[in-house]
Amino acid sequence: MTIKVGVLGAQGRVGQAVVAGVTAADDLELVAQIDRDDTLQTLIDAQADVIVDFTTPNVVMDNLEFCLTHGIHCVVGTTGFTPERLTQVEAWATSNNTNCLIAPNFAISAVLTMQFAKQAARFFDSAEVVEYHHPNKLDAPSGTAIHTAEGIAAARHAAHLPAMPDATTQALDGARGANVDGVPVHAVRMTGMVAHEEVIFGSQGQTLIIRQDSYDRMSFIPGVLLGVRNVGTHPGLTVGLEHYLGI
Amino acid sequence: MTIKVGVLGAQGRVGQAVVAGVTAADDLELVAQIDRDDTLQTLIDAQADVIVDFTTPNVVMDNLEFCLTHGIHCVVGTTGFTPERLTQVEAWATSNNTNCLIAPNFAISAVLTMQFAKQAARFFDSAEVVEYHHPNKLDAPSGTAIHTAEGIAAARHAAHLPAMPDATTQALDGARGANVDGVPVHAVRMTGMVAHEEVIFGSQGQTLIIRQDSYDRMSFIPGVLLGVRNVGTHPGLTVGLEHYLGI
Amino acid sequence: MTIKVGVLGAQGRVGQAVVAGVTAADDLELVAQIDRDDTLQTLIDAQADVIVDFTTPNVVMDNLEFCLTHGIHCVVGTTGFTPERLTQVEAWATSNNTNCLIAPNFAISAVLTMQFAKQAARFFDSAEVVEYHHPNKLDAPSGTAIHTAEGIAAARHAAHLPAMPDATTQALDGARGANVDGVPVHAVRMTGMVAHEEVIFGSQGQTLIIRQDSYDRMSFIPGVLLGVRNVGTHPGLTVGLEHYLGI
Amino acid sequence: MTIKVGVLGAQGRVGQAVVAGVTAADDLELVAQIDRDDTLQTLIDAQADVIVDFTTPNVVMDNLEFCLTHGIHCVVGTTGFTPERLTQVEAWATSNNTNCLIAPNFAISAVLTMQFAKQAARFFDSAEVVEYHHPNKLDAPSGTAIHTAEGIAAARHAAHLPAMPDATTQALDGARGANVDGVPVHAVRMTGMVAHEEVIFGSQGQTLIIRQDSYDRMSFIPGVLLGVRNVGTHPGLTVGLEHYLGI
Repeated sequence: MTIKVGVLGAQGRVGQAVVAGVTAADDLELVAQIDRDDTLQTLIDAQADVIVDFTTPNVVMDNLEFCLTHGIHCVVGTTGFTPERLTQVEAWATSNNTNCLIAPNFAISAVLTMQFAKQAARFFDSAEVVEYHHPNKLDAPSGTAIHTAEGIAAARHAAHLPAMPDATTQALDGARGANVDGVPVHAVRMTGMVAHEEVIFGSQGQTLIIRQDSYDRMSFIPGVLLGVRNVGTHPGLTVGLEHYLGI
Repeated sequence: MTIKVGVLGAQGRVGQAVVAGVTAADDLELVAQIDRDDTLQTLIDAQADVIVDFTTPNVVMDNLEFCLTHGIHCVVGTTGFTPERLTQVEAWATSNNTNCLIAPNFAISAVLTMQFAKQAARFFDSAEVVEYHHPNKLDAPSGTAIHTAEGIAAARHAAHLPAMPDATTQALDGARGANVDGVPVHAVRMTGMVAHEEVIFGSQGQTLIIRQDSYDRMSFIPGVLLGVRNVGTHPGLTVGLEHYLGI
Repeated sequence: MTIKVGVLGAQGRVGQAVVAGVTAADDLELVAQIDRDDTLQTLIDAQADVIVDFTTPNVVMDNLEFCLTHGIHCVVGTTGFTPERLTQVEAWATSNNTNCLIAPNFAISAVLTMQFAKQAARFFDSAEVVEYHHPNKLDAPSGTAIHTAEGIAAARHAAHLPAMPDATTQALDGARGANVDGVPVHAVRMTGMVAHEEVIFGSQGQTLIIRQDSYDRMSFIPGVLLGVRNVGTHPGLTVGLEHYLGI
Repeated sequence: MTIKVGVLGAQGRVGQAVVAGVTAADDLELVAQIDRDDTLQTLIDAQADVIVDFTTPNVVMDNLEFCLTHGIHCVVGTTGFTPERLTQVEAWATSNNTNCLIAPNFAISAVLTMQFAKQAARFFDSAEVVEYHHPNKLDAPSGTAIHTAEGIAAARHAAHLPAMPDATTQALDGARGANVDGVPVHAVRMTGMVAHEEVIFGSQGQTLIIRQDSYDRMSFIPGVLLGVRNVGTHPGLTVGLEHYLGI
């Protein structure tokens, strides 16, 4: 049985990619494409089971209220969710028996990297993160790399690991990277690259590397489709794709 | 409270490394070193809590019977366990309330690579394994790489994934690697290298790489110590270090 | 002083990228865009110094004859050059004091990989090539990887190196890759990847890796611009961008 | 015809490895092992063609004076050569028609990495260096990485390349690495690793990576043997193994 999908923000660059992704999937049926001038009523008429929302912070709450109170599950990549907004979305979902997935990152490989890094962290003496991005990026390190390092640091702390070994006494400024809760993070900016993250763990005589490469901006599509396929079985509000991965 | 440890096969190359590793650990106390001409009674006199056995298939069963029936937990890297032997060991353990860990591979990074590969497999269209070893190795691919590929294939099968995409119509013999249950496995033999395994997963616009490097033959020590520290809380017989990693 | 550039095949996908690349370069001036229905006379009127030809085998010879006999240097990515064709092009160039660069591969990183591989080959016991491509590729290994392996084999042969060490006695079919003149070549096919080549050399206690990644189809542009800027100083016919790299 | 080799500092850890390396080579004959209490006259009696010196700064000059004035070529890994010392060595060599190679680094893969990095630098918009070492190392970045970055910077300068693109406006301290003449250098310290250097170049749609891994401390042996085999044909004093690589 196919899932009937509506796409909100369907004319946007990301929305168009979602439309293409849904259309290409055998088990999904694209039943509505909504953009700025369209009415949400279309979703009801088309009997949408699930909507995907890549719109803007100023319209997303209206979209979610409408859908969640009309029996339609929501998969959301729009940004700008404050704790207050999340509480409101959860209330809509639970009081209507509808489900909602809100995720800051739909790239499955990036989400898995972060999860595996958290799981591996307590077994190794050393851990560092190296991220690589195109040179037009404004922040260094990337938010994902900082988040990964924080997850590693928390796992090390929970396991009562001591500080990492580092005998450096003579260093050029910046050589040892940024210190994120005790985990060194290095940011490379390189023409030609897109978005890449490498987490390195070391123990006696061995290393473990978990590396994620995003080659183009369509890398979020498989994660969105995973969300669409599984939102029906995750009650209420879920924040973060990792909770859909079963690991 | 420190754990009292006895080492069996203490004069062997591996045993010596275990002795050094136990000695260097603050929370472990080396209380006995047993080799060919020593009596196992020494373990009782020394009040060993746990023994580590890296001996040979023809003495290991006697060692385990003695220890498990005298209240001593066992961590075992010796090879040659048939199903019959495992059943026997389990009987000794359960009837004496003692515990035993038998593991073919104590390199934590290798065990994690295999576990993460199994967890990630169902989220990706493509998966291949490339392993790298010194040129004196007799088998290709390595047993670990074959085992990893089998785990990936089983996870893909359980998730009802179709065959991997591969449009190759014109290939030199061997170019696409060995086919292990549908997963291509490539073996590189290279002077200077030790033992390295890379698992590559691909999906739309992204890849995930899990890589393990063993730089020297001491890489099993952290896994043995992990076994020693945790064997007391894993009742009966456990086969495989992965069951001690909590993932 | 800027170089005046004409682009032939300007409406094609590659031609459009060349037009964009020339336009973006401060030291180059785009003076003509020629496609199927345009006359080559436009190049003379526009006083083109250099043309770039990404057309088809059935028109390229007419294009080159016209340009080389009218004082215009040529940078050519079109395929299908037989030895006879090359002899003809060389005759046009030398008798008119014009220059022509014909290259099968304009990706500088790929050309450098091949050159460095040839230079390094004689210093190492072991050498293997692993290439990675999207799964729609028809041939395995890639032509570039085969060419790289042949270059390594020739360099090893010239240095009288013995066969590579490899103790493998028990192998799954295909595990050790394709044998290209004694150099193992492994081909990975992976959704999400584009085109990547890794050359690995090993010697006592050390390895050297030369790796090239192409992330999108525009990776040939810097090489074309390099050709345009330097064709004026390389007399007659040159086949292969490597001769322009001064290494 | 075999080359007769004497080893100075033969009892030292490095010297012992050189002895083993010379002994294992078919085309070399070990004719003398000299250490603290031995007389250099032994080298004459044994008709040594070439000596290898891994001793200390306070005896190396006496060793070289003796050998170079007695017709014996020298391959030297001992440190501490000031400009004055080099001038003196050169004088001994040229006035006696003997040859001397002094090299700070005999790991061929490291020397090639540096040479290839210099050659590639002018073809790319971006270049960064990431080095990885065991956590007992005192300096960061490594001397080799700094030297590599300086070579890249000099090549970019000679080619009149502009500064690398980098839009970073918001960075954690240290995230973008150490700045060595405009080339970012990142230093990772990791239990389990030995000594590894990766040079990354980027241009439109592509990257080139040159990576060197040293897995153990014997990685200098092939370079020493290369020196021994070729010192006879490089007149006078040569500083740096790169001059023996013919690239």
